[in-house]
Amino acid sequence: MPEISIRGRRMPESPIRKLAPYADIANKKGLKVYHLNIGQPDIKSPEIAIQAIKNINMDIIEYGPSAGYESYRKKLAQFYTNQNVRVDYTDIMITTGGSEALLFALGSIMDPGDEVIIPEPFYANYHAFSEESSATVIPVNSDFESGFTLPSIEAFEKLITPKTKAILICNPSNPTGNLYSETEIQQLGELVKKHDLFLIADEVYREFIYDEKDRHYSVMNLIGLEQNVIMIDSVSKRYSMCGARIGCMVTKNKEVIAAAMKFAQARLCPPTIEQIACEAAIDTPQSYFDEVITEYKERRDTLITELHKIEGVKVTPPKAAFYCIAELPVDNTETFAQWLLESYNLNKETVMVAPAAGFYSTPGMGLKQVRIAYVLNKEDLTRAVHILKDAIATYNAR
Amino acid sequence: MPEISIRGRRMPESPIRKLAPYADIANKKGLKVYHLNIGQPDIKSPEIAIQAIKNINMDIIEYGPSAGYESYRKKLAQFYTNQNVRVDYTDIMITTGGSEALLFALGSIMDPGDEVIIPEPFYANYHAFSEESSATVIPVNSDFESGFTLPSIEAFEKLITPKTKAILICNPSNPTGNLYSETEIQQLGELVKKHDLFLIADEVYREFIYDEKDRHYSVMNLIGLEQNVIMIDSVSKRYSMCGARIGCMVTKNKEVIAAAMKFAQARLCPPTIEQIACEAAIDTPQSYFDEVITEYKERRDTLITELHKIEGVKVTPPKAAFYCIAELPVDNTETFAQWLLESYNLNKETVMVAPAAGFYSTPGMGLKQVRIAYVLNKEDLTRAVHILKDAIATYNAR
Repeated sequence: MPEISIRGRRMPESPIRKLAPYADIANKKGLKVYHLNIGQPDIKSPEIAIQAIKNINMDIIEYGPSAGYESYRKKLAQFYTNQNVRVDYTDIMITTGGSEALLFALGSIMDPGDEVIIPEPFYANYHAFSEESSATVIPVNSDFESGFTLPSIEAFEKLITPKTKAILICNPSNPTGNLYSETEIQQLGELVKKHDLFLIADEVYREFIYDEKDRHYSVMNLIGLEQNVIMIDSVSKRYSMCGARIGCMVTKNKEVIAAAMKFAQARLCPPTIEQIACEAAIDTPQSYFDEVITEYKERRDTLITELHKIEGVKVTPPKAAFYCIAELPVDNTETFAQWLLESYNLNKETVMVAPAAGFYSTPGMGLKQVRIAYVLNKEDLTRAVHILKDAIATYNAR
Repeated sequence: MPEISIRGRRMPESPIRKLAPYADIANKKGLKVYHLNIGQPDIKSPEIAIQAIKNINMDIIEYGPSAGYESYRKKLAQFYTNQNVRVDYTDIMITTGGSEALLFALGSIMDPGDEVIIPEPFYANYHAFSEESSATVIPVNSDFESGFTLPSIEAFEKLITPKTKAILICNPSNPTGNLYSETEIQQLGELVKKHDLFLIADEVYREFIYDEKDRHYSVMNLIGLEQNVIMIDSVSKRYSMCGARIGCMVTKNKEVIAAAMKFAQARLCPPTIEQIACEAAIDTPQSYFDEVITEYKERRDTLITELHKIEGVKVTPPKAAFYCIAELPVDNTETFAQWLLESYNLNKETVMVAPAAGFYSTPGMGLKQVRIAYVLNKEDLTRAVHILKDAIATYNAR
């Protein structure tokens, strides 16, 4: 029997999805599972996008252009410009989700063995995409106690080697809920410029910011860094269209666009129907976002209030996105998360959380932490945290 | 300015799509371009699939499972079983097009520097996918004069090294239109078994066979090779749904499935709406396929008859898929194809062909050949070949 590849063996399992079989067990036992583990919002997709799908007028579901429909790219350029991120449609390549945008970016700038520095904890799939590209992730620790602000520039600089090609950030951050300040982004920009690196910023949560005083500062606004910066974006969260698998890679570096175009041509095109829906979604009224942001802000506040009621739980209120990292008073959150699904229930209900170790690249980090996604309504969130409180007590009393 | 990767530089441009800017020039001059270059059929998608899209009943376009919807995988397993390809739904992973299925297969079995042997000419993107995976393509020449039948087993065997991990075939073949016989597939199977290799077969044109005596023989039917064989499939051509970007990887090798599952989890899921359309499409009535096959058979016959009217053109009638490789009496088909779009017209019409050199991995091969896709109706095909005839004469008389 021929062997699979070393890469295939080394690819990490998704920490978010690998508990899924245990959730199936819980479901088969008839338990209700509150999902605090996954970023699938319960927010409705914009009506205008759903209608665009229902009203498609085509006999043949044809290939589109490899870079995405020009009409969509032009509308998207205008959308960013309205957000004060000035880009031309030729700077934008439509991709099959933010996932593919990241794969194209890494493939275009990194060779096997090249290094990318990422503040940890980070979105676990960055590890997978790097492995797919045979690139090496170099983690730089961001501190739980300080709410996961940017690690010091010195900490980054210590890790730079001749193999370093890029720094990758997620801003706002999945999984921490942190938002980097303009000053932090400027500091990163200077570092990147000094060492002639790429700066990749995953900005898919750019709209999800909850405090009046906070503003998202895009890497695309870094002056003089136009050739270094690559922005990753997606419609998944903005329009609650995770299943559409439409994202984009944005950069003013024409060599990167040209290289990525070859990756794009190889896979032919992004999905046609979903692109039509996303183009329509750009006209979503502001009221939709206002409602969504208000709702998430309330959920965040509810979640943090409820979590603070559990003795021994530590958590910094997140500023953005819809995640936070909480430290739980249990020995190991991997074991605990599995136990929640396999061996526990409170009146036939349980919760599912994402153990945070999978979001760290350094072994042994995050063993007592979980990532919580606050994508449930307030009532369910309150109930889920109540169950979590009971579960922690039961677990520790075994 | 930071540099792009060696991989990014080495990625081949799509020979099918790289002429697109010249087609734009022709279009802007108001010329009508007959596309003999691309595999976008003019056949309508099944009504049942279009209706499934129009009738979607969801408020949220949610993530699906990473391996695809279970209901779809089960229907697909039944579909293959009806075709005498006995598979279980757990052997099937739904992917974002056949493209992604190939990337998952290569990533799961190959490490940087590993070698995959492919009969050339081959679907040009195999080269791109290998480059993305940092794998090395080793071409084995299949002969134009013999109609691109399988190269001799000795020719394959000579190329096997300790780095060889797989043989990749396309059956029926894009770009040659050849169909491998059961005997040829059995011979390949023995070779693969002897050297403990993987055999990847891209069978996306499995339904497009035009002669009564011919039958498609799937690698999935090779007895004793269950652990070696990986089948790639797609809905793009079967249902004329190229833009849906839904395909699948099929194998009974559970280690390969498990490795591919990690690639699948990293990119979250295939597109939701298009999967719903594809699941519906499985109930397409047989009459749809009968009509399509009759139509393509007539197109093939028309194309070959018309091509034979051009002095100096050599072509073997293809048995399957909807492509053929023709040798033209011109010095270089790359130059000729560009000239057709930039500098030529016959009553404001011209044709676009895919130069075949891009389908070869060996430099200097196929320079006088083009790939012709017969995806136009018979009238347009006849007209296009008439223009081609005039163009060849004009080009050679410059």
